[in-house]
Amino acid sequence: MNFQEISNKRRSINFFDTDKDVTEAQLSQIVELAANTPSSFNLQPWNLMVLRNPEEKEKLKSLAWDQPKVVEAPVVLIVLADKAGWQEGHSTFEKNWQEMLKSGSMKLEQREWFLNATKSLYDWSPEANLAFAAKNTGFFAMSLMYAATSLGLETHPMDGFDHEAVRKAFKIPDNYWVPLLLAVGTMKPGLKLHPAKWRKKYNEIVVSF
Amino acid sequence: MNFQEISNKRRSINFFDTDKDVTEAQLSQIVELAANTPSSFNLQPWNLMVLRNPEEKEKLKSLAWDQPKVVEAPVVLIVLADKAGWQEGHSTFEKNWQEMLKSGSMKLEQREWFLNATKSLYDWSPEANLAFAAKNTGFFAMSLMYAATSLGLETHPMDGFDHEAVRKAFKIPDNYWVPLLLAVGTMKPGLKLHPAKWRKKYNEIVVSF
Repeated sequence: MNFQEISNKRRSINFFDTDKDVTEAQLSQIVELAANTPSSFNLQPWNLMVLRNPEEKEKLKSLAWDQPKVVEAPVVLIVLADKAGWQEGHSTFEKNWQEMLKSGSMKLEQREWFLNATKSLYDWSPEANLAFAAKNTGFFAMSLMYAATSLGLETHPMDGFDHEAVRKAFKIPDNYWVPLLLAVGTMKPGLKLHPAKWRKKYNEIVVSF
Repeated sequence: MNFQEISNKRRSINFFDTDKDVTEAQLSQIVELAANTPSSFNLQPWNLMVLRNPEEKEKLKSLAWDQPKVVEAPVVLIVLADKAGWQEGHSTFEKNWQEMLKSGSMKLEQREWFLNATKSLYDWSPEANLAFAAKNTGFFAMSLMYAATSLGLETHPMDGFDHEAVRKAFKIPDNYWVPLLLAVGTMKPGLKLHPAKWRKKYNEIVVSF
């Protein structure tokens, strides 16, 4: 499939086939394809919790407007946006720094510059910090959806859940915001999709002031 | 190109060919491909300012760490995340509602439910409101990058700018957060790309608590 086809094929699916699994091989293929996603200073401030266990999915469903797809999809991802991803000492920050030294894209004496760059952009306000995490994790989640589509699977990104209750029930640390849940699976057979919803056109997207 | 190829081909390009334009036809093709992006309740809380004029790009460059690509890329997009996109009366909210009525996916008597759904999710805290805008606009910006790659163009998403100064200089209304600038163009000829940066692997992305 080319991108035009993937873009048209990707739809948010409400009804999943409960007889069809997403294998670990498929899931890791999706995630590693999406891992190519660009991010601010390559900080990759995203993580995933993978829910397959029916009890875990039932627990999530009860906090997610009782949406049947939360249990019907074989895999539900709790997508996590890491607000601490720019901080000195964070494991990804430090691994990224070491890899940049190794490849020669940064030099030891640029450490102070690098620390100040991320601090100045993501620590000037709580909003900037949250937007950094949510924006980059938005990039990553979009890539997950396209990757799944390209591999013949279906997804549904979900906002309908109690953010604080999910955080508590799944013991999610304070450095994370939960921007979405993502159901992954195969469409229930025999269903006919509605036409795609209305979208804004170019001249409704472009603005000037 | 299939998605694997697009995912590998998409790189953040630092040096653009100043002799090669991005035509209006190309830009609208990118934007309308990306317009298929899913969003929370189909609210599409994103907009773009399109900068082509050299003086406008110089003004932006002076507020964006003086990055040469801001003027060298033929098109620079100021990507806008609309925090008000879930509110009753917002033009996209109301157009979306009318289109859902027309298609039969919502009924008139569900208006109250729909209003309460978005309000309960995006108005319980300023964080939830900002995360809604930044996450969905992250989806959209990622789609713009893949769409550009699929059409043979290059991009660079940028965080290195003074958020408040850009907002002021370009008269951006208060309902918008500016999650990124996006340069679009063609790579300067004769350059050799460095290998892609390190990325987290599946087992570094998946977490449990």
